[in-house]
Amino acid sequence: MDARNPLNIGAAARAMSNFGFHHLRVVNPYDVAFQGARSAVGAADVLASAENCETLAEAIADCSLVVGTTAIGHRDLQHSLQRVEAGAPVIRAHLASGACALLFGSEKFGLSNKDMSHCHWLMHIPTREEHLSMNLGQAVAICLYELIRDSGAPVEPEKGSAASSAEVERITATLFAALQASGYPKLNTSDSFEGAVRRLVRRLHLQTGDAEFLLGMLRQMVWKMTKSGQAKG
Amino acid sequence: MDARNPLNIGAAARAMSNFGFHHLRVVNPYDVAFQGARSAVGAADVLASAENCETLAEAIADCSLVVGTTAIGHRDLQHSLQRVEAGAPVIRAHLASGACALLFGSEKFGLSNKDMSHCHWLMHIPTREEHLSMNLGQAVAICLYELIRDSGAPVEPEKGSAASSAEVERITATLFAALQASGYPKLNTSDSFEGAVRRLVRRLHLQTGDAEFLLGMLRQMVWKMTKSGQAKG
Repeated sequence: MDARNPLNIGAAARAMSNFGFHHLRVVNPYDVAFQGARSAVGAADVLASAENCETLAEAIADCSLVVGTTAIGHRDLQHSLQRVEAGAPVIRAHLASGACALLFGSEKFGLSNKDMSHCHWLMHIPTREEHLSMNLGQAVAICLYELIRDSGAPVEPEKGSAASSAEVERITATLFAALQASGYPKLNTSDSFEGAVRRLVRRLHLQTGDAEFLLGMLRQMVWKMTKSGQAKG
Repeated sequence: MDARNPLNIGAAARAMSNFGFHHLRVVNPYDVAFQGARSAVGAADVLASAENCETLAEAIADCSLVVGTTAIGHRDLQHSLQRVEAGAPVIRAHLASGACALLFGSEKFGLSNKDMSHCHWLMHIPTREEHLSMNLGQAVAICLYELIRDSGAPVEPEKGSAASSAEVERITATLFAALQASGYPKLNTSDSFEGAVRRLVRRLHLQTGDAEFLLGMLRQMVWKMTKSGQAKG
């Protein structure tokens, strides 16, 4: 949650409390907004235990599924996009084996492209074409409602456990290092290239064991490439 | 809608606009609240055409179905009560032939017994026992969302097409070549190791574009590692 309006933080916390979700993490809030939210009706517990994170990467580090929310609109999206009623069962199934982060951007700007590059996929609420943008607190309420809706229905748990965002981020960084060491021609430090690689790695749906396996391979390649470079130099 | 808080009226109007509901009737609002709501983002049309009614009876006069909303709680209800996901299809079916009023009470007190007496039945949102009461704007948003949910919309197809087995196999082979060139310690030609790598690559669920992207990266690494080896040898 990246929120600047205390009413929005409070409303989000209240909906969380209504539907039984307890872990609110706020990325880099204006202090005033965070303090102002503390009066939200009935949401004292959620707000008292809310964590203030400096970066999105920190906020999602222990989550093995990261889902962004968007009002779509004019932007070209690089991600798979699901309507909330189709996405919620996938999230529910994941929750049987691992933690999931549901990201909300600011009401005015939504999630940035960089924020989205941390996501496995995106979810949207089917609003009218002529008025896509929802109030943040209302959007949070609908997404959480959809998660508990029909919660009697049995869910197929996912096989194995998905790699955490921290593990996936290590692979991303090591892949960058490998590309750099290899002299990969299209390599550059632009946000768009970095985002493309980050999204690629997230689309791999890595399991915990696979993540370690792949990381070991990449590290060996990096070691080989940088070692040879030194030997030559 | 019996609302005393302009933010709640505005939030309700915004959700109506998001989901395509245009007839807002406010029963006996404090003038100040009604005026204050007029700034709600994107809901100008709904608010401009909102009607101010003196009584609930007047507000629902032309509706052939009247559904009240309640957070239940301690009150003995005299009405049939439906969860919103069960009630919404009934309302949708009714809308094909006549108008329906969906009533919301004030956030603090809900609908009075007298208000409820105008209702055909009641609907509630399945919130937690320990925190039943929702923010009014969020409750409105969820009820309206449920009314448009699943309204025959085709499911969003997944983006892209899955990589062919040939593409996946090329990646597998190139990954083997990269591991070999890197001197990966566990590399051997046993069926079990080869099988493990092959399964790993298949678990990645690669899309066509991603497969090419990844193959290009791996080939560059192989080129770099073998070229250096030749320079040294």
